[in-house]
Amino acid sequence: MRGRAIDETIDAIRPPDEASRTAARALQLKLTKPAGSLGRLEELHVWAAGVFRSAAPPLPRKIIVVAAGDHGVADEGVSAYPQEVTAQMLANFLAGGAAVSVLARHAGAEVRVVDAGVRSDSHEPHVHVAKVRAGAGNIARGPAMSGDEAETLVARGIAFAGELCAAGPVAVALGDMGIANTTPAAAITSVLADVPSHAAAGRGTGIDDAGFERKVRAIEQAIAVNRPDATDPLDVLAKVGGCEIAFLAGVTLGAARRSAPIVLDGYPTTAAALIAAALAPASLDYMLASHISAEPGHRLALAQLGLRPLLDLELRLGEGTGAALALSLLDAALRIPREMATFDAAGVSRSDTETRPEA
Amino acid sequence: MRGRAIDETIDAIRPPDEASRTAARALQLKLTKPAGSLGRLEELHVWAAGVFRSAAPPLPRKIIVVAAGDHGVADEGVSAYPQEVTAQMLANFLAGGAAVSVLARHAGAEVRVVDAGVRSDSHEPHVHVAKVRAGAGNIARGPAMSGDEAETLVARGIAFAGELCAAGPVAVALGDMGIANTTPAAAITSVLADVPSHAAAGRGTGIDDAGFERKVRAIEQAIAVNRPDATDPLDVLAKVGGCEIAFLAGVTLGAARRSAPIVLDGYPTTAAALIAAALAPASLDYMLASHISAEPGHRLALAQLGLRPLLDLELRLGEGTGAALALSLLDAALRIPREMATFDAAGVSRSDTETRPEA
Repeated sequence: MRGRAIDETIDAIRPPDEASRTAARALQLKLTKPAGSLGRLEELHVWAAGVFRSAAPPLPRKIIVVAAGDHGVADEGVSAYPQEVTAQMLANFLAGGAAVSVLARHAGAEVRVVDAGVRSDSHEPHVHVAKVRAGAGNIARGPAMSGDEAETLVARGIAFAGELCAAGPVAVALGDMGIANTTPAAAITSVLADVPSHAAAGRGTGIDDAGFERKVRAIEQAIAVNRPDATDPLDVLAKVGGCEIAFLAGVTLGAARRSAPIVLDGYPTTAAALIAAALAPASLDYMLASHISAEPGHRLALAQLGLRPLLDLELRLGEGTGAALALSLLDAALRIPREMATFDAAGVSRSDTETRPEA
Repeated sequence: MRGRAIDETIDAIRPPDEASRTAARALQLKLTKPAGSLGRLEELHVWAAGVFRSAAPPLPRKIIVVAAGDHGVADEGVSAYPQEVTAQMLANFLAGGAAVSVLARHAGAEVRVVDAGVRSDSHEPHVHVAKVRAGAGNIARGPAMSGDEAETLVARGIAFAGELCAAGPVAVALGDMGIANTTPAAAITSVLADVPSHAAAGRGTGIDDAGFERKVRAIEQAIAVNRPDATDPLDVLAKVGGCEIAFLAGVTLGAARRSAPIVLDGYPTTAAALIAAALAPASLDYMLASHISAEPGHRLALAQLGLRPLLDLELRLGEGTGAALALSLLDAALRIPREMATFDAAGVSRSDTETRPEA
């Protein structure tokens, strides 16, 4: 049986507002440009209108939740980086020197750093500490965490999103930091999208051929040893997931419950979205795929969600870097209906198909 | 014989600075992220380093040159919009209500509006008037303009770019406005990229099947009637081009001569780039393809230039809208080397391949 907080959140997710979507489409047709000529920016506006329940939503506050966690599976040699980098990068996020720090400033977004399960304790102020354990277990040898721990992390993510969304319109972007975390991301994708381990695995931060083989084997072992139940997303999460992935799955559910857009980043955040969507299919309507990463399994995970990424810039960094760029595009899309002139107001003639009465 | 201003400009275009590119690559390796993990943002920084001749260039001033011109070929029924829209939109640009006005504000870019050959005279202040004639001739029946007129427009574009680039680092984006101007864009592409008219043509602002057939026929006629010399770019421009395309070809040459990046937009601006690149292959190193438009011939034109677009958002509006979004990405890319922490400064451990002495 699942915890009450999770079930209540899932039940409270409403569908997006269809009337606002319809009004947004009608508004687009009045703007001084050929119908449909802004392509995906127009789609983005219509989508956001449904999510924010307004035909021309104001620009939202933008927050990137960077959740960090360690992974015992790093012991299997699946990453090019030593595990202490997770904690070191947490300090770097707070100092504003990480890639996501820079791109968040560029997008006018805030970064909120969460310790969802870093091995060492941070004494930095401004870290939201959500952890229930000092890193996930080595999934190649046993579960990442217990079922209770997974539920607690999801519930904490839900509560965190609730706080973020309390003060007016917010767009929530997901970011991750966790050395070795594309391994659990691939394991989750392998189970929930039903694809083989070697297709779900990639080079992560840059491992060599031998490292890649170790990674594929670790994913296969994780599934063989833990036997996750593909019909029970929390079981998959606890057995082959990770702490930051659990927290971000909760943030996703919590944001969807508050009708806030959830902007995915790369593979680990999309694995969190896979868990959230399996728990609550209604949360899918609130998700935006920011980019397709260079990590091959990411494509499979997005396909499983049925989401089409906005950007393809061959990013493979995580942290919410792609999500930051998409937040900026979301702002651009939302400015169009608020700031563009209409044909009538600007005295611009319409096209022949638009002025023909039968069209 | 070509005019002196054009020849001098072509001769003065330098190659980008290879030392700055090398230094930019070295700088990227010191930043707290896996090598190469920011994908095309890293490439963009390295490219811009060569262009601006600095390993970590400051953020440039961003200017979108929106050049407007009319096209007699509109009489052939190749556009869904009446010709007076060109002049109406010019007023809309100046009032800040057009799509490019909004996206320029979003990107922190200025819009400079140029009358390169609008049929009616504008009495708006703040329009740079560069025109030599009130619209291009109907290319399906004769030349767009005389060779002298084409040269004058190119020379005026060069001079305009020179003024824009006089005060410190500037990124110059190209925008176009001209009802029916994807027809000359397709004609230029057909000639310079050696592709058939039907492959170079598209639906533009949204014509129907019959309109598309008229457009293909108009392009075929333009080439048959005018017999442009594919080895003489100015002849192609004068015979099957257009006034704003000529001016933008000049802006491209002028910006390249000042070592400024030139950000292309959709099909008409890329046709201008085709002319510029044919006149001065060295200008290619200064060009950035912002996006691939929904107009099918645009892909062929970019392929001919050997440029890979940054974005695919299914835009087909022109005006510099895609270029505005790319200017924002350029800023993002340039902030990375200036604002990110290095491994040493942040006390972050490097990957095993980076710390291995032989790596």
